[in-house]
Amino acid sequence: MKSFTKELWFNIKDRVAFIDITEQVEEALRESGVKEGLVLCNAMHITASVFINDNESGLHNDFIEWLDEVAPHDPVTRYRHNVGEDNADAHIKRQIFGREVVVAVTRGALHFGPWERIFYGEFDGKRKKRVLVKIIGE
Amino acid sequence: MKSFTKELWFNIKDRVAFIDITEQVEEALRESGVKEGLVLCNAMHITASVFINDNESGLHNDFIEWLDEVAPHDPVTRYRHNVGEDNADAHIKRQIFGREVVVAVTRGALHFGPWERIFYGEFDGKRKKRVLVKIIGE
Amino acid sequence: MKSFTKELWFNIKDRVAFIDITEQVEEALRESGVKEGLVLCNAMHITASVFINDNESGLHNDFIEWLDEVAPHDPVTRYRHNVGEDNADAHIKRQIFGREVVVAVTRGALHFGPWERIFYGEFDGKRKKRVLVKIIGE
Repeated sequence: MKSFTKELWFNIKDRVAFIDITEQVEEALRESGVKEGLVLCNAMHITASVFINDNESGLHNDFIEWLDEVAPHDPVTRYRHNVGEDNADAHIKRQIFGREVVVAVTRGALHFGPWERIFYGEFDGKRKKRVLVKIIGE
Repeated sequence: MKSFTKELWFNIKDRVAFIDITEQVEEALRESGVKEGLVLCNAMHITASVFINDNESGLHNDFIEWLDEVAPHDPVTRYRHNVGEDNADAHIKRQIFGREVVVAVTRGALHFGPWERIFYGEFDGKRKKRVLVKIIGE
Repeated sequence: MKSFTKELWFNIKDRVAFIDITEQVEEALRESGVKEGLVLCNAMHITASVFINDNESGLHNDFIEWLDEVAPHDPVTRYRHNVGEDNADAHIKRQIFGREVVVAVTRGALHFGPWERIFYGEFDGKRKKRVLVKIIGE
């Protein structure tokens, strides 16, 4: 069994944004040499998500608006966590969108359906944060 | 390390429905010959989920009503994604219910608690869509 | 490839609570002897979650209040599942927070960012329930 580990760094200028990281995960897969196995890709921070969906800007706007409707950022005082912090909503948004994805590797490629893309979902940006790519297989 | 790959096809007649796919995943596990390892089971489309919960029709009705309460299908114009499309809500519903499950394989069986069943969750049906089963182990 | 399997038992006194199980998962990892691989940690019951977030009591209160706002326990009659049951909301809460986490193992340790902790999320307690830890790797 082979294993491969890589951390990707991000420094998002906005508080909330989605970044397509599919090519960086594909590059890690090539570096790993794994042909059959699994890729785990997870946010290493608890106010961010890694998820798979469509690369369509209107949809991303819908996601961001919908998340802020169900778990509003303001007023920050509505959350008990926000004592000297203002990111409780970011923790909730990350819970909804999830921490990680697991993707199959078949014949050396990410085994994807027609529109699947991997995104880093930042909900409390303006600072350096990491995503882990762990690949196991043969 | 063994690996095994199988795609399951579905063509759901309704826009929204949940289908119990546990037996199809168990059949794939038998075909794989894996006795100890992990099964990844994921929707290959971004308006569908694979999730684990109870096989109880009242609960499934509750799930469908609750999802449409928090992310309504109508009016479709409320979503920016819906330009020539009407499935933005399906993308959101899939984000809430998740893309995939990872299930342990122990002594050749899915290692499940008493009520766990695997479901394909369709949120934008009436067309052919796929689920991937990837099994690794020994 | 090595594989290791362990079930953890919980009997939460309250209906809803979050328990930090990171040390129990780390103990299972030491017992497994795995240095590079993946840990799957999942609830074996369909009214409970395993998730990763911050160990901060104010945030946990926010989580519990937010979940009960979007999927209220009362009135229990609002859910069709609740015929002789009162836990439909617990099934929905578990869907939002997820069934499982997959964590990378690197150099014999859980490969975590600075604040990641693993929690058992109970939404229908006052009885014995299990969490599965499955570890594969080398």
